[in-house]
Amino acid sequence: MPELLPRARASQESIFARMSRLAVQHGAVNLGQGFPSDAPPAFLLDAARGAVGRLDQYAPPAGLPVLREALGADLGVDGADVVVTSGATEALNVLALTLYGPGDEVLTLEPVFDVYVPQARLAGATPVMVPMRLDARGWGLDLPALRAAVTPRTRALLLNTPHNPTGAVFSRAELEEVVALARQHDLWIVSDEVYDELYFGDRPVALRTLAPERTFTVGSAGKRLEATGWRVGWIACPPGTGLAGNVAGIRQQGSFCAPTPLQAAVAAALPVARRDGFYAGLRQEYAGRMALLAGGLEALGATVYRPGGTYFLTAQLGPAAPDAGTLVERGGVATIPLEAFYPTHGAPQGMVRLAFCKSRGEIEQALDRLAAALVPA
Amino acid sequence: MPELLPRARASQESIFARMSRLAVQHGAVNLGQGFPSDAPPAFLLDAARGAVGRLDQYAPPAGLPVLREALGADLGVDGADVVVTSGATEALNVLALTLYGPGDEVLTLEPVFDVYVPQARLAGATPVMVPMRLDARGWGLDLPALRAAVTPRTRALLLNTPHNPTGAVFSRAELEEVVALARQHDLWIVSDEVYDELYFGDRPVALRTLAPERTFTVGSAGKRLEATGWRVGWIACPPGTGLAGNVAGIRQQGSFCAPTPLQAAVAAALPVARRDGFYAGLRQEYAGRMALLAGGLEALGATVYRPGGTYFLTAQLGPAAPDAGTLVERGGVATIPLEAFYPTHGAPQGMVRLAFCKSRGEIEQALDRLAAALVPA
Repeated sequence: MPELLPRARASQESIFARMSRLAVQHGAVNLGQGFPSDAPPAFLLDAARGAVGRLDQYAPPAGLPVLREALGADLGVDGADVVVTSGATEALNVLALTLYGPGDEVLTLEPVFDVYVPQARLAGATPVMVPMRLDARGWGLDLPALRAAVTPRTRALLLNTPHNPTGAVFSRAELEEVVALARQHDLWIVSDEVYDELYFGDRPVALRTLAPERTFTVGSAGKRLEATGWRVGWIACPPGTGLAGNVAGIRQQGSFCAPTPLQAAVAAALPVARRDGFYAGLRQEYAGRMALLAGGLEALGATVYRPGGTYFLTAQLGPAAPDAGTLVERGGVATIPLEAFYPTHGAPQGMVRLAFCKSRGEIEQALDRLAAALVPA
Repeated sequence: MPELLPRARASQESIFARMSRLAVQHGAVNLGQGFPSDAPPAFLLDAARGAVGRLDQYAPPAGLPVLREALGADLGVDGADVVVTSGATEALNVLALTLYGPGDEVLTLEPVFDVYVPQARLAGATPVMVPMRLDARGWGLDLPALRAAVTPRTRALLLNTPHNPTGAVFSRAELEEVVALARQHDLWIVSDEVYDELYFGDRPVALRTLAPERTFTVGSAGKRLEATGWRVGWIACPPGTGLAGNVAGIRQQGSFCAPTPLQAAVAAALPVARRDGFYAGLRQEYAGRMALLAGGLEALGATVYRPGGTYFLTAQLGPAAPDAGTLVERGGVATIPLEAFYPTHGAPQGMVRLAFCKSRGEIEQALDRLAAALVPA
């Protein structure tokens, strides 16, 4: 047989898919992959059941017009500047192919959401990672390090706020510095804001409000509406530039369009979610589950870094903790080891990411199992 | 602002999306883009309504196990060798990224299904197109030309049978020659068989049955089950090679997974469609609509090339025919000009592709409008 390309030989199962597979295999509570245990809201499900059998054929690659309009209204942008994608993963991939190419560097943070690195490489670009600082204040941007990492080849900044895996929400002051840097060096900004409605303190600042002329915002119906398997994401492009046309042109080579009936359901659900305070309810519920998990871990001696957003927290489980592989196979709890988010620099020792978008029962069961697993042998 | 990459500047709306947009805008009957006017079958819709609210979170990137098993049973392969994608467009893109890279040539046919060319280029490879022959026997493979186009850089053959846009179904003898060529030069075969159940004469030969060791088969639930907007496609990889793991690894960078509830619905529907003769009914219905459209066009003086498969036919509408742009804007009928499928060689003069997966009423209305539009002014 012909030889396989190096990029195909190197491709491997993502840490999230792997941990979910192991969790099923070993009957572990899955605090690894970030998908909620709760069902999506009834107003979304009803809309989908109504759209199936009515809107089943191709949508335009840029998205159903009704969804682009609903997103425009929700995000405070023009629907013509929005492109719908098959989930936020595809949105990020499309932006990589649109904005970075051979010879370009894209600056991002470490720990890094896993797809950023292979996507940049598939696009022909080089990902350059700047470690975040971790100190008594928790996780944050290391602005001097970010500034120092810019080179003449830097083409874009790829940020994630609220940040996965750390849960950090960058402050307005930090983001203003980022914008100043982007303006000084004429860089694109790709702002992955899939957790924009999941925060526990101040509302995250949307980078597009600070630098509309150069910011592409990535969002996700799956994260907002608790339906991660529906594959409806979006890109809000710099307004009035016509860039949405270029983005849609690249996007149609990927999966042509996002699932039509689910697009229609999201279009119907977005204004309902806003009007009925769905996101506020979600934040309140998840704040409670975060406190349950964080408090339980602290009672077991773990060091917990409480997040400002997302449905993840990071924690050092302590010196007696088995590694994540042993923990899912024998301890009955799936986590994501922070090493998985550090392709270039060293990760903080013994740290894991834990998802709290799971039921209270699952969180309690995980804590019980961790109590047993963390006892020194 | 930073300059846009050439590949993003060059990206444009596909001819299918454009013609569908113009059809809506001008109230034209849409015989352009290939999506059916009929609703998908009730057994598929009911399965989707049942899956929504039950299976809404991420599926494994390679696909829901139940769908991989159902596809394995349907295709006569092992489910472990099947990877589910967000539609066949994504399947083709994933295979481009997996199999062809910088310095490689991929051989395909002209007229060419539009995404093959930009996808090969995004993957870093060079698409090389061999014109099909068109003579009294209709459309067919030009085997000597195909052989002559192989170079030391050729890495793969990318074929489409039944072939879109021509509707040609390649014979076993033709495909055996293709396989001999692939074996002689050690080439991968990517066989786009999304119309595998839509044929009007002999059942198309699946290339994987002739060259299992090197053939990747692309399929589509949207085409088979009349739900083109659902985005459930697949890749059947060479059996027992483990290549499905590499393909899934590339696939997860694109859109992570296909829509979970729709995957579950397709898994439930595939055995029902096979058991209840759904595909045979579809073929019978479309054979009738093809005869209606072909006969009507011939009565208007057009030269029609009747297809062996797909739901398209090609036709030369005659010397008085307006071009496809004028026809959709003023004649009230959307078609796809064959030039759109000829990026390198010249297209046969005045030829269009017409879809007959539309209702009989739409086909009759289109014929009435064409009768008016084809009268010499």
